[in-house]
Amino acid sequence: MRRPVVGLLSDFGLKDPYVAEMKAVISSICEDAQIIDISHGIEKFDVRMGAFVLASTVPYFPKDAVYVAVVDPGVGTKRRPIVVETKHSLLVGPDNGLLILAAEKDRVKHVYEIRNTALMLPRVSTIFHGRDVFAPVAAYLAMGRLPYEVGSEIDDYLIPKYAKPAVEGGTLTGEVLHIDDFGNIITNISAKDLNKIDAEKDASLLVKLGRKFLSLRYCSAYGEVAVNGLLAVIGGHGFLEIAINQGNAASKLKARVGMNMQIVKA
Amino acid sequence: MRRPVVGLLSDFGLKDPYVAEMKAVISSICEDAQIIDISHGIEKFDVRMGAFVLASTVPYFPKDAVYVAVVDPGVGTKRRPIVVETKHSLLVGPDNGLLILAAEKDRVKHVYEIRNTALMLPRVSTIFHGRDVFAPVAAYLAMGRLPYEVGSEIDDYLIPKYAKPAVEGGTLTGEVLHIDDFGNIITNISAKDLNKIDAEKDASLLVKLGRKFLSLRYCSAYGEVAVNGLLAVIGGHGFLEIAINQGNAASKLKARVGMNMQIVKA
Amino acid sequence: MRRPVVGLLSDFGLKDPYVAEMKAVISSICEDAQIIDISHGIEKFDVRMGAFVLASTVPYFPKDAVYVAVVDPGVGTKRRPIVVETKHSLLVGPDNGLLILAAEKDRVKHVYEIRNTALMLPRVSTIFHGRDVFAPVAAYLAMGRLPYEVGSEIDDYLIPKYAKPAVEGGTLTGEVLHIDDFGNIITNISAKDLNKIDAEKDASLLVKLGRKFLSLRYCSAYGEVAVNGLLAVIGGHGFLEIAINQGNAASKLKARVGMNMQIVKA
Repeated sequence: MRRPVVGLLSDFGLKDPYVAEMKAVISSICEDAQIIDISHGIEKFDVRMGAFVLASTVPYFPKDAVYVAVVDPGVGTKRRPIVVETKHSLLVGPDNGLLILAAEKDRVKHVYEIRNTALMLPRVSTIFHGRDVFAPVAAYLAMGRLPYEVGSEIDDYLIPKYAKPAVEGGTLTGEVLHIDDFGNIITNISAKDLNKIDAEKDASLLVKLGRKFLSLRYCSAYGEVAVNGLLAVIGGHGFLEIAINQGNAASKLKARVGMNMQIVKA
Repeated sequence: MRRPVVGLLSDFGLKDPYVAEMKAVISSICEDAQIIDISHGIEKFDVRMGAFVLASTVPYFPKDAVYVAVVDPGVGTKRRPIVVETKHSLLVGPDNGLLILAAEKDRVKHVYEIRNTALMLPRVSTIFHGRDVFAPVAAYLAMGRLPYEVGSEIDDYLIPKYAKPAVEGGTLTGEVLHIDDFGNIITNISAKDLNKIDAEKDASLLVKLGRKFLSLRYCSAYGEVAVNGLLAVIGGHGFLEIAINQGNAASKLKARVGMNMQIVKA
Repeated sequence: MRRPVVGLLSDFGLKDPYVAEMKAVISSICEDAQIIDISHGIEKFDVRMGAFVLASTVPYFPKDAVYVAVVDPGVGTKRRPIVVETKHSLLVGPDNGLLILAAEKDRVKHVYEIRNTALMLPRVSTIFHGRDVFAPVAAYLAMGRLPYEVGSEIDDYLIPKYAKPAVEGGTLTGEVLHIDDFGNIITNISAKDLNKIDAEKDASLLVKLGRKFLSLRYCSAYGEVAVNGLLAVIGGHGFLEIAINQGNAASKLKARVGMNMQIVKA
């Protein structure tokens, strides 16, 4: 049998001891765990960015992986700690929508509220459930403990309602979902959405982003325009990106997450 | 027997080859080593921050872990390379106080000066003992070599004298130990220290931080005050934090490491 | 047999899902792979920095490691994906010079163009060959698949022509290769180059860096000058560094990668 794989995501950053403490806890309980960092650079408290990054990555992990995701502004309050069981994987984290986008890619089967203190650290702080609750629960699940052992099943878990793109009269409306480290402006618009306005590869798209109007070639690769040229392309995550070939589109266009955009075929 | 665990801490950052070179050396000698990064984001040359982060993390590691910590402004000078043997673990690094805070949590048994060149890389630079001395020594210790093999026992190792909080006439005096990536202002004051001025949960504390006067609720969780509200709370590391619920207290209060603070019960 | 080691380098940064997706793909194919991050903080599109960091690190890895390096401004264009087979290792990445500096340290034996789609992900994007081509190919190689299985051998791969230092009339001319996270100014000048102008340890070097003239002691360790003092030293990578003891030389001297420098013996 393969070593259990545990994927880890948080908004903790990497300078503090927090991520290492989670890994140390996982490793103390489940010696064989192979821990893969997904990201610890999620913007602080930005549940939506965490949900996007987690959902992007999960399809590439081995089946039966366990995920621990902690973007948790409500730690220590009434928000519940949960385990989501999907067809192929288990996700552990707060009940604030963070896990559901990723879980839905693989069909949600059951959601459990974590209550079983035998699967937590002996001393649970009110400050750091990542280390004291989520990490040990994930480690026990990676060892083969069953999800229903963590607590009762619930059905009123939080399902995030992120804006979906809309088409009206040939205009596709969406928004900026994420700006990546290259400055690529990643939207919530998929190739399927672009089909609805009959956008075709190599043709031009007219894009209104915030107050800026852009005419962009709908490309298949960054290198299809000259260096420093603007383009539109479906990124590796399956969403439309506005990018600059070898440049930073977000800083050039002053784009920010949440900005509105309209697209029409030229 | 479980795979040996090696915890790694440095002020090297992650863009350069330095951390990878250390991991590659460890992995070349001790194939089975499971390397867990503690932090490589320690402020350059900040031995105290390194000592704090190391000491915070060590209690969560498996017993019998080996640690390599390198915040080493004196590399290549007369400062000695050492191995600290505690009840449960071995710590490898420079004799500048970095290791001792963590080691004392687990009782220091012996300290050895590293002299045995057979446990180092064949060519030892005067610039990078992390790779050439500390990493290979740690890897050999992880393989089961015994700490006294590295060199003679010493008893004049450097014990850092970090300021301890003091109570006088109901006033608790401490200082800022660390500012974490969330902007939480972490002090050297423990819950036990706060007991000495009879501070009680949910009551108010009057805090003088630098030249600012603050009245803060002594909370159990960030979410006990409104979003953007200031609070005082014992963090996951066991020390008093001044924090903003979902905000950055350090930038709001212009706090810096080393700042003085006084606390009285309201 | 030891677990296969896979070294990973990119300019992706660590906040996005990209690095994790590559690791997840590698780990899905080659369960036993021990993945060691070399750096993901290469400056965006900076093939030369990537080549330098990769070449610095490779000598410390176990023999028979597989490397995946992705600094790939030409992704999706005609630049070829390649595997370089050296005496001891396999390097996977784009044919843009990134791999060759490291490969030459260990003698290049064969270079293959990757064409075999059976060793790629089922769906290959034009945007993210790191995940869809390089990671799976590396994982299959780590599993024991042979390099010639990826495609035909080529001999017209790109060999980067990075400037080499020159000596003329006692003046050594070189350039700034890299500025590390400490602010150390790393040049392309080796100890051997310095021998050519009879530079001796502890003597002074006159250095012209950009428009600044400096007189620097040629030291063996940072601590040989006072704190905040400038010095010249051969770094852990074997190249001349201009450094400040416990300070940041690059910001003090406003040095940038690519800057010219001349050195004469004082």
